Amino acid sequence: MSTAKKIGVLGGGQLGQMLGLAAIPLGIECVFYDPAPDAPARVAGRHVCAAWNDRAALAAFAESIDAITFEFENVPTESLAFLAGIKPVRPGVRSLELTCDRIKEKEFLRSAGVPVQPFAAIASDADLDIALATVGPHGVLKTRTLGYDGKGQRVVRAAQELAPAWNELGRAPCIYEAFVPFDREVSVVATRALDGTTAVYPVVENLHTSGILFRSIAPARVGDALSHAAMKHARSVLEALGHVGTLALEMFVADNTLVANEIAPRVHNSGHWTIQGARTSQFENHMRAVAGLPLGDAGAPEFAAMVNLIGGVPETAEILAIPGASAQLYGKSPRPGRKVAHINVVAPTRDELLERLARVEALARRANRLA
Amino acid sequence: MSTAKKIGVLGGGQLGQMLGLAAIPLGIECVFYDPAPDAPARVAGRHVCAAWNDRAALAAFAESIDAITFEFENVPTESLAFLAGIKPVRPGVRSLELTCDRIKEKEFLRSAGVPVQPFAAIASDADLDIALATVGPHGVLKTRTLGYDGKGQRVVRAAQELAPAWNELGRAPCIYEAFVPFDREVSVVATRALDGTTAVYPVVENLHTSGILFRSIAPARVGDALSHAAMKHARSVLEALGHVGTLALEMFVADNTLVANEIAPRVHNSGHWTIQGARTSQFENHMRAVAGLPLGDAGAPEFAAMVNLIGGVPETAEILAIPGASAQLYGKSPRPGRKVAHINVVAPTRDELLERLARVEALARRANRLA
Repeated sequence: MSTAKKIGVLGGGQLGQMLGLAAIPLGIECVFYDPAPDAPARVAGRHVCAAWNDRAALAAFAESIDAITFEFENVPTESLAFLAGIKPVRPGVRSLELTCDRIKEKEFLRSAGVPVQPFAAIASDADLDIALATVGPHGVLKTRTLGYDGKGQRVVRAAQELAPAWNELGRAPCIYEAFVPFDREVSVVATRALDGTTAVYPVVENLHTSGILFRSIAPARVGDALSHAAMKHARSVLEALGHVGTLALEMFVADNTLVANEIAPRVHNSGHWTIQGARTSQFENHMRAVAGLPLGDAGAPEFAAMVNLIGGVPETAEILAIPGASAQLYGKSPRPGRKVAHINVVAPTRDELLERLARVEALARRANRLA
Repeated sequence: MSTAKKIGVLGGGQLGQMLGLAAIPLGIECVFYDPAPDAPARVAGRHVCAAWNDRAALAAFAESIDAITFEFENVPTESLAFLAGIKPVRPGVRSLELTCDRIKEKEFLRSAGVPVQPFAAIASDADLDIALATVGPHGVLKTRTLGYDGKGQRVVRAAQELAPAWNELGRAPCIYEAFVPFDREVSVVATRALDGTTAVYPVVENLHTSGILFRSIAPARVGDALSHAAMKHARSVLEALGHVGTLALEMFVADNTLVANEIAPRVHNSGHWTIQGARTSQFENHMRAVAGLPLGDAGAPEFAAMVNLIGGVPETAEILAIPGASAQLYGKSPRPGRKVAHINVVAPTRDELLERLARVEALARRANRLA
């Protein structure tokens, strides 16, 4: 079987940039399709700057490459279907469709044997009472599609708050999910190759601020049993989807059990630590999978963490003065709430990691400007 | 002190490519000056394709950047002096001048307290007898300048072979060095920051084939005392040169003592293992140094090795099927004797490393085409 040498990437943000940087040493050329002229990925491959509905540009793009992947999940369905008619899309359209609809996603997780909290679909006033009966008065209302980083969400704390919350979200089709009183948020990043083999990264614990990921620590401070269960769930998801490439499964730990929150069908922010922290990064493993190559070791020789820089970046010299720290700047102009860089930090022991991480977090908190 | 954000790199080969890939995450833009239109580094930054004596192109290049570095040491002296009049060159011109002349280099090493074998300069017939008296009848004759990868060298095994060898080298100014009956070849890669701090990588043992590096293993199988001495010598060289950036000190181990062979005043092939094997790669540390940033940890969490692919490349899938292996393809068309890629391999134990390395070496020996 011949492997793909030219890979088209839908989206040219920082995830695309890191995919492109991982592809070059493998002898893989990336072509990024992104309507933004200043797409960060343009430094790591050719950039096709065209609209998502530009059929001629899409066709020329597809003809110039061997396989297609994506770095963000909101590629218009028609564009994706059109491209899929010309070249293989990896992961498949199924991974994207399922995870773009929160109801389908939760139903899929349940069918794959991954535990989820109670949930209900809301499309009409009549659904509100049914949803309250199923889920209870304490929950989170989310639009079924197009939400990310805490956008398109409302927390509901009492039955009478649900209807106003739905009105605030423009009465769009929604999912109403039971609130999970979680102790920790964790995620598992994992990759599946074209031949079905998988590589699962250590479980990561995450901390969000204003709905945006602030910090990840690997491995997560959870017991072995929970850790193995979380990794098994990620593998189940990969296999049930027939996914090719990297994905992330986000879960809550509540009362020492796991509840799946959502799937990101692509490389994920909670896997950025793998660039310095794991033997093979999530980006390299994604490109290996999409190209049809064998996967690399997802193990980590040491302890690692990642902190996002959001809306502001400290001096690079300040970052690098912290032992074990490295900087990844995306080349984006800072705006409040915009992820513009991240800092990875590694250490040979957990204590040293936490000490270094405290310095990194302090630096980030000073620089960050949330929306 | 403000740090350099745009760095000009003289030369755009694979070393430039790997420097550029290390620079992008640091928010550093590289501009590569290389007369070859297909310079491998062009995928990792802007490429100025112009001749070394094109003063207008050199001036425009220098004006567009904050600092200048180089990835190969044969930049014409006048071009370098011209550029150094416009922007800071790091490492300094001294590092380049010394290491471009094998006699000056050996004299410098001796003055820096680094042991060298007996040597003598040959510029005339009269020098031949003096050289034989100083060095002995078993030695290596090398041109003083412009030799690399075993080119411009002759082995001398008896007194009467010296004069013919010198004739074969075109009676160019030469150095005649005593043959060192070495047990191992080792090297130390090390970086010095603008503020004088240093980061020294573990000692590496090297194996050459037909004068070209074939394989490096880190850490080298030498005792602690020798290892510390080798690292100390590298630090002495960095400091005596006032070097800014990465360099490699190549040494022989003979009868359990060290004898310095030569200095490469730049990132070095025997340091390629650091991309996957060390906490910070030699390329990243070089860019940090040239930019005026703090250096990263040069330690290695596991065992690592590197094998060069010379004149041919196996299928990427074959490389990546070996556990712990990663591929770095330079994007050069294969020609016998030309370095076109390397394979890094890491492992948690030395035994596993050697087992994996044997598979990598077998693959490379099948693919390699030496000149």
